[in-house]
Amino acid sequence: MFDVIKQDLAALEEAMIATVQSPVAIITEIGTHLVQSGGKRLRPALYFLAARGGVSFDRDKVMPLAVAIEMIHMASLVHDDVIDSADLRRGTATANSKWGNQLAILGGDYLFAKAFSLVAGNGYDDRITMRLSQLICDLSAGEIIQNKEIYKASRDEAEYYDRIAKKTANFLADCCEMGGILAGLSAIETKALYEYGQAIGMAFQITDDLLDLTAETDAIGKPAGNDILQGIVTLPVIRALGVSADAQELEQIVTCREMSASMLARAIEIVKATDGIDYAQAKVDTYLERARTVLPESLPVEIREAYQMAADFIRLRKY
Amino acid sequence: MFDVIKQDLAALEEAMIATVQSPVAIITEIGTHLVQSGGKRLRPALYFLAARGGVSFDRDKVMPLAVAIEMIHMASLVHDDVIDSADLRRGTATANSKWGNQLAILGGDYLFAKAFSLVAGNGYDDRITMRLSQLICDLSAGEIIQNKEIYKASRDEAEYYDRIAKKTANFLADCCEMGGILAGLSAIETKALYEYGQAIGMAFQITDDLLDLTAETDAIGKPAGNDILQGIVTLPVIRALGVSADAQELEQIVTCREMSASMLARAIEIVKATDGIDYAQAKVDTYLERARTVLPESLPVEIREAYQMAADFIRLRKY
Repeated sequence: MFDVIKQDLAALEEAMIATVQSPVAIITEIGTHLVQSGGKRLRPALYFLAARGGVSFDRDKVMPLAVAIEMIHMASLVHDDVIDSADLRRGTATANSKWGNQLAILGGDYLFAKAFSLVAGNGYDDRITMRLSQLICDLSAGEIIQNKEIYKASRDEAEYYDRIAKKTANFLADCCEMGGILAGLSAIETKALYEYGQAIGMAFQITDDLLDLTAETDAIGKPAGNDILQGIVTLPVIRALGVSADAQELEQIVTCREMSASMLARAIEIVKATDGIDYAQAKVDTYLERARTVLPESLPVEIREAYQMAADFIRLRKY
Repeated sequence: MFDVIKQDLAALEEAMIATVQSPVAIITEIGTHLVQSGGKRLRPALYFLAARGGVSFDRDKVMPLAVAIEMIHMASLVHDDVIDSADLRRGTATANSKWGNQLAILGGDYLFAKAFSLVAGNGYDDRITMRLSQLICDLSAGEIIQNKEIYKASRDEAEYYDRIAKKTANFLADCCEMGGILAGLSAIETKALYEYGQAIGMAFQITDDLLDLTAETDAIGKPAGNDILQGIVTLPVIRALGVSADAQELEQIVTCREMSASMLARAIEIVKATDGIDYAQAKVDTYLERARTVLPESLPVEIREAYQMAADFIRLRKY
């Protein structure tokens, strides 16, 4: 999709494989499996684009932070999969299903630490290290809030936005901003890039939550309604809890820890009978419109176009 | 025990409580519980002593790293307790028993990130950040190796030393060295401090493993032989597997994942009938002797004395 950073992303794969090599065989094994299980590499892509937004670009300087960014994302997914007892991610066996919860927890810790050593050892300034650690604080805080709220049937939209900002959008925003800092862009430009990342991050997570309700089982490797099953209330459900004539029945289902398949199917049916899906989709469009307009005019045209395409891609994605 | 750093340790408690304050109530709650559950604060103590070994000492400068050090230790204990499904630590409820595995995993991640943001935001140099991230890599690698080897009845002493170095001794060594760096000590002095920390770290972990076999249940909140029960083979057991006439029976027990209480009692009996305990104790004494002799002569007398006392304390500790 992003021709301008295609070689950066190819080099990233090599750099990640090199990073997970360890004298401890099992660490290399787990790390290699996680890298090879793939992923969209959205975060490093957003970062590379911003890093190419200035007058010069030094891949050797930029690469360690790209690896660190993706490793932090991978570490959080590994811990998420332990928490969710997930067997598959993107159709591939999760670390916990292959090596057990213990090794998966420790493997995640290892990736977090490795990310920091990459940043510490490559002469980035304090702003970068600060951003990176704040980002993990936010990530875990977002997950903690989500976990605390499961099976609670909250109808609080503001709380939902706060949670997905912490869990997803701030991370994407930080990636854009850190790239901008390395590109030597002005404070105004990096702030605009941050806001772009924030907006597509919100759109991305709401879309993720929509797809959880609407996608086929095999597309993302999870059954439809998996969030509801896990007690996680997302925007279409929050909307339905507010407007549906069957809101009480929906509430009873989404607060039930022993949810049967037919209860889940009924909950999805109730949500789909409301404007919950369209309502959430409209929010996605608002965020994407904001993302498109906030992009600095001063960016090189191929970078601006790639960022616009990223926004289009989020609107269209079906997995 | 350490009068010279008594006020530093008191200030540390306050700084830790301040650090875990968060707009997210549950984070403050978990963090405060973990800080108030106490601990020996051995790592920050070793660090403070070294930091007071130079010509000047600036507590404001030194404190954030002390908090970071103890938070990394706390985070690793929180994840350990999830992995071990432990209900109690030092007689207090563990995070996983109070809030469940999910929040405990995420709470640990949060503490790791918080530790890094403390270091990133306070102008320490790259050597410190590198050391800190390498330290977590080592910590998780040590735990990963241990986890991979459970119920394996290894008789390899070298592997045991490598594992406890990664799990414990390197951390203590890093604390001494980082304090020395902040005190502005010479490369020779900081290297000697590192070796001191390494030696008492080895002695400390072997003692821990000895106490697991010999202590009463209520002293450390775990039943005697807990390591064996979890499939972790420590030095006295490795020794017994090598020298006991009942080595085969011992091997059968320590490799059994469905270990009954009477099997465990028999395993402890077999180990205690050999020189395993004395053998491990002799290793402790060798490491402590090395710790005492490696200390730089140039350290202020009160710091040298405190470090000597730390070595004596490890020799005597019964909990």
